[in-house]
Amino acid sequence: MAERSYFDWNATAPLRPEAAEAVRAALALAGNPSSVHAEGRAARRLVEDAREQVAALVGARPGDVVFTSSGTEANMLALTPAIQTAAERRPRDKLLISAIEHVSVRTGGRFVPDAVVDVAVDGDGRVDLEALTQALAAASRPLVSIMLANNETGVVQPIAAAAAIVHAAGGLLHVDAVQGAGRIACDIDALGADLLTLSAHKIGGPKGVGALVRAREDIHFPEPLIRGGGQERGLRAGTENVAGIAAFGAAAAVARHQGPAEAGRMRALRDALEAGLKGIAPGLTIFGAAAERLPNTTLFGAPGLKAETAVIAFDLEGIAVSSGAACSSGKVQPSHVLAAMGFSAPLSRGAVRVSLGWTSSETDVERFLNAWTKLATALSKGQAAA
Amino acid sequence: MAERSYFDWNATAPLRPEAAEAVRAALALAGNPSSVHAEGRAARRLVEDAREQVAALVGARPGDVVFTSSGTEANMLALTPAIQTAAERRPRDKLLISAIEHVSVRTGGRFVPDAVVDVAVDGDGRVDLEALTQALAAASRPLVSIMLANNETGVVQPIAAAAAIVHAAGGLLHVDAVQGAGRIACDIDALGADLLTLSAHKIGGPKGVGALVRAREDIHFPEPLIRGGGQERGLRAGTENVAGIAAFGAAAAVARHQGPAEAGRMRALRDALEAGLKGIAPGLTIFGAAAERLPNTTLFGAPGLKAETAVIAFDLEGIAVSSGAACSSGKVQPSHVLAAMGFSAPLSRGAVRVSLGWTSSETDVERFLNAWTKLATALSKGQAAA
Repeated sequence: MAERSYFDWNATAPLRPEAAEAVRAALALAGNPSSVHAEGRAARRLVEDAREQVAALVGARPGDVVFTSSGTEANMLALTPAIQTAAERRPRDKLLISAIEHVSVRTGGRFVPDAVVDVAVDGDGRVDLEALTQALAAASRPLVSIMLANNETGVVQPIAAAAAIVHAAGGLLHVDAVQGAGRIACDIDALGADLLTLSAHKIGGPKGVGALVRAREDIHFPEPLIRGGGQERGLRAGTENVAGIAAFGAAAAVARHQGPAEAGRMRALRDALEAGLKGIAPGLTIFGAAAERLPNTTLFGAPGLKAETAVIAFDLEGIAVSSGAACSSGKVQPSHVLAAMGFSAPLSRGAVRVSLGWTSSETDVERFLNAWTKLATALSKGQAAA
Repeated sequence: MAERSYFDWNATAPLRPEAAEAVRAALALAGNPSSVHAEGRAARRLVEDAREQVAALVGARPGDVVFTSSGTEANMLALTPAIQTAAERRPRDKLLISAIEHVSVRTGGRFVPDAVVDVAVDGDGRVDLEALTQALAAASRPLVSIMLANNETGVVQPIAAAAAIVHAAGGLLHVDAVQGAGRIACDIDALGADLLTLSAHKIGGPKGVGALVRAREDIHFPEPLIRGGGQERGLRAGTENVAGIAAFGAAAAVARHQGPAEAGRMRALRDALEAGLKGIAPGLTIFGAAAERLPNTTLFGAPGLKAETAVIAFDLEGIAVSSGAACSSGKVQPSHVLAAMGFSAPLSRGAVRVSLGWTSSETDVERFLNAWTKLATALSKGQAAA
C-alpha cells in the first residue's frame, strides 16, 4: 500500500508504541490475575498498575476505576436505574441525555425507553442548559448523561456548568469522556462528574478495553451488567483482559504527560486544514465552528457533497476520513447530531469528518487539501461527489 | 525467577506463539472494523477471518459466532429468558443448570433467582440424567445449561445424551465448553448443543475474548446484553477487540489441528503424575477418577491436606497449581462442585487442582512429584500442610 494519511482518529487511534510494548510484556506472562501463585500475582500487578495510570489521567483514585471491554460497556454499566449513592438508594426515575450522545448512550442503557428524555442542544452543538434545567424539574431522581465532547463535531460540552445544575436538582451526572480524554482537560472533580466513561483505543491503547470511573466510592451498582466471579470488586465479572488493560494504562500515562503538547500541535494542523478547506470551497460549512471544539476534529459539509462518495474518493487518494459517526455499521445515516443542531438532512447527510492525532503531519494536511481540491472541482461541475 | 512449572492451565493457558504473532500483526493496523476506508476494511478482515477459524473449531458457521469479552459475558448473553427460536417466541420460564456449573452460570444470567433450578450430579461428578428429566417435566419452556467439562474435576459431561432429553422436552441446551474446547471433541452438532460458550484464553489465545456460538441462525436474542452500535450483527455493541479476536482465531486454528495430538501427550503425562501422586501418598483421593475426564486435569485431596497451604508450598517450590476454581477472588471456599458430588467439607476444602497443557513436560511432572513428596512427608508428620 502506498503511504496513506489517517484522519479518522475519532473512530480509533493507532496504537502508541508504549502501549504496544505493554501488550508484548503482558502477553509474555502466563497467569490469571485471580490466581495466588507467582504467575497470578504478576498478572494482578499489571492490572493494578494500569488502574493507577488510568485513574491518574482523570484525577480519580485507582479503587474507583472499573475496567470494561469498551466505552459502550462502561456506558451500559453506568446507565441503570439501580445505581445508588449513600444518600439515595431508590431507583432513578429518569435518564436525561443530551440529544447528541453516542448511540451507546442513546439506547438508554438499562432504562426502559419511556424513562429516557432527550435534552436539546443549540445550533452550535452545545447542550442547552435551560432545557436541562426544565427536564430536571420534571424528574424526581434523575440520572443525567452528557458527553465531554461530541464525536462528530468535536464540540466540547459545558460539563462543569451542567454538573452544578444537575447536582442542585439532586441528580447524578455521567460523562462519556471517550472523545475528550487525553485531548482536553478531563479531571473528574473539576468537571463535577459523578461517573466518567473512558475508552482505551481513543487515546492510543488497544480496541476492546474501556473503563467506568466513579468520583466517589459511595456510588454503587447493585446490579452489575456482567455477573459471575468477583473480578473488579464484584462490579464486572470475567477474567480480565490483562494485556489490553496494561496497554490502556501505558497509553493513559503517555496521554497524561504528552496530551497538552499533542493537542497544541493538532490544533495548529487542524486550523491550517480548515483554512485550506474554506479557501478551496468558499460555500463550506464547518459544523460547530462557533463553539469550543476538540483540537483535532473538523466536521464539514458543502452543497452537493455526499459523504459516501467523498469518503470513497478520499480513500482512493490514500486518505482515511469518515462520514459522521463510524462506530457501528459503517452505514451513512442522517446524523442525529446535526439534526439536533437544526441542519437539514441533505447538508448533514453529506458531512465529512476529519479527525487528527499525534502523528498527523503537515504532509498529511497537504495531501488532504490536494484531494479536496480535486473533489471540490468535481463538485462544482456537478460530478463525482454529487 | 528460577525456572518454574506451570500447572494451572484450567485457570488460563500461556499464549500460543501463533496467537502472539496475530496480536502483533493486528496491533500494527490502525482502523476501526466499522470504518469503510482501507484501514477499516483491513481490521474488518481480521475479525471475519477469526470468526471462520473459531467457527471451524466447533463445526459451526461463521455467521453464528458472536465475539464477546469473555466466557462469562457469553454465558450472560446466552442465559436470558428472552431467547427466542422460530418455533418459540415466548419467554423461557426456567433455567436448569447442573449443580457443578461455573459461577458465571450459577448466577443465572438474566433469569430471576427463583427461576434457576439446580440439577444434581452423581458421586463421580456427572450430571444425573434422571434428575434432569424430572426437572424438565416441571418446566414449560426451559433453557438448560450444562458444561462440557468441569473446570475443577475435569469430568466430561454426557452432553449428547442430555441434549436428546432436553430437546424431547422442548428445551434449549446451552453448553459452556470453555474447558473442553481444544482438549476433547467439541462439534456443536455432534454435541447437540443449541448454544456454546468459548473462551480464548483457555485455548492459547489472550485473556479478554470469548464467543457465544449458535447451532442455527433461528436462535435469536431480542435483548442483547451490551447495546449501542450495530457490531456483531446487533448482538453485541462496542468496537471489537480486533487484536484479541484475531489471536483467538489463530489459537483456535492451532487447537483444531494440534488439539488431538496435544491431548494424547497431556493424558500420558497426567496419568504418570497421578500414578506418582498415589504412590507417594496412598490415602489420596482423585476426584471424578471413575468418570471420563479431560486429559489434562487432576483434582486431588488427602486427609489433612489444606489447599491454601499446599498452593503456597508448591509455589515456593516453583510450581503453579490451584485450589479448586481460581477464576475470581482467589479465595479458597469449600468447592460447590465437590459438595455436589457428596464429599465432606474438610476433604473438599483441601482439594488441589493440577492442570496441564501443551508445553507441559516430564521435567515438570518430576518437579511436581518431588515437591509433593516433601509436602506429603510433612503431612504425614502432621506439619506444614496441616
